[in-house]
Amino acid sequence: MQNNSNNSIGVFDSGVGGLTVVKALIEQLPFENIIYFGDTARVPYGVKSVETITRYAMQITQFLLDQKVKLLIIACNTMSAVAYHAIRELSTVAVLDVVDAGARSAVAVTQNKCVGVIGTPATINSNAYQKAIKRFDPDIRVFSQACPLFVPLVEEGWLDHQVTRLTAQEYLKYIITQNIDTLVLGCTHYPLLKPLLQEIMGNQITLVDSAQSITEKAGELLKNNNLLNEQRKDPEYRFYVTDVPIRFTSIGERILGRTLSNINVVKW
Amino acid sequence: MQNNSNNSIGVFDSGVGGLTVVKALIEQLPFENIIYFGDTARVPYGVKSVETITRYAMQITQFLLDQKVKLLIIACNTMSAVAYHAIRELSTVAVLDVVDAGARSAVAVTQNKCVGVIGTPATINSNAYQKAIKRFDPDIRVFSQACPLFVPLVEEGWLDHQVTRLTAQEYLKYIITQNIDTLVLGCTHYPLLKPLLQEIMGNQITLVDSAQSITEKAGELLKNNNLLNEQRKDPEYRFYVTDVPIRFTSIGERILGRTLSNINVVKW
Repeated sequence: MQNNSNNSIGVFDSGVGGLTVVKALIEQLPFENIIYFGDTARVPYGVKSVETITRYAMQITQFLLDQKVKLLIIACNTMSAVAYHAIRELSTVAVLDVVDAGARSAVAVTQNKCVGVIGTPATINSNAYQKAIKRFDPDIRVFSQACPLFVPLVEEGWLDHQVTRLTAQEYLKYIITQNIDTLVLGCTHYPLLKPLLQEIMGNQITLVDSAQSITEKAGELLKNNNLLNEQRKDPEYRFYVTDVPIRFTSIGERILGRTLSNINVVKW
Repeated sequence: MQNNSNNSIGVFDSGVGGLTVVKALIEQLPFENIIYFGDTARVPYGVKSVETITRYAMQITQFLLDQKVKLLIIACNTMSAVAYHAIRELSTVAVLDVVDAGARSAVAVTQNKCVGVIGTPATINSNAYQKAIKRFDPDIRVFSQACPLFVPLVEEGWLDHQVTRLTAQEYLKYIITQNIDTLVLGCTHYPLLKPLLQEIMGNQITLVDSAQSITEKAGELLKNNNLLNEQRKDPEYRFYVTDVPIRFTSIGERILGRTLSNINVVKW
């Protein structure tokens, strides 16, 4: 890496969901500059084809590399699942992805080697979590379920609504019978449904939130490469989006848990 | 219009929803060639900003004009609501839009001059239906409600699901108390929810489906301009999309009510 520790960490997602990763980074690595890219004009990715997702992912990667980031974090499960290799090939800096981080956490957490994974249709159809988990431990059994309505429900703000509860019961009814002890929340929007999902799954099930896992990995990687920002001053947070859609700020701030400012629009 | 009656009718939408208009055109104008454009890579438009919707709408308009269409139909309520004037200015052929067509039908249908309108957040926030209806009859009172979850619910295929019923009851609870006698389905996806919406609203309420209204207007306009296709041979149907996403064919065929073929991908 031809890299400077003062450079920013680049985080990207198809929309606002990846702000859950930014939130964790701000809490755990408070001196790091962060550039976030959310493709809010073209969100959601989870129902698009592999080819289109890959093309868009490479466009974003190049944009962030042009901003001289020192590390790339793919906060979007869908892009991690279907475009990781293309992004990795293009990138001149290290790349971390949420699928790998979530899979590692699940492997560390499960006791009975039965793991559930929920995500968008593109993420689940890719089998990326299953492959990643089995690479670490081939004995683990993985049960997957696509939950396409969870993203619109979160964006509607119906986090504890009867409609969301019924939808979750419908989506989870197969997984719940499979004796899993760990459930990977394979989409950055899903942590906002944590209380509801925990209630439906029961307290004996551990929910894995990849935003937490990937932040820990980012800290280690920067430390091992002497890339932690040594300057003890207020870091800069810059947000790039391709659209400022209706309710953008309210949804973004709900996810980030703080005020959103320094927002720049890229017209793609 | 420098126009040829053998040219196609160009129909466009943000995604597959506008196929409800194509279906009505095929049934009512069976000798017309049709070119459909669905921006399936960037769908949904209903939650984007006015600026981005307008930019995308103009790009699609130019694409269809380059295909030498004889008439443009904006099947997307969101684009009709926020980008009609920009499209009209760019177009060298006549432009029909679903908002105008739906508003005319509502005005013709209502007896008590109380009309409800449901649509995406962008359509409802634009007040386009309200303005169009009041242009025809300023005495009509209009009650509007955004229903952002209806599109994902239709695309999930939950047309008669308890979740959809509860969601509809929640969205419609204000409108239902307003003594309306007419409800405009201001989004091309919503006609698939007709039975459920009719049940919730009650049989005394007339549901206005803009796909039907705009097709009648298209027939009149072509006739009055001597642009009806006089050739009595099998017409050509061409479909352009910006992505072939997961479940595209099944959702598209559910809406169109027939097999989808001759699909071409435009990489934007």
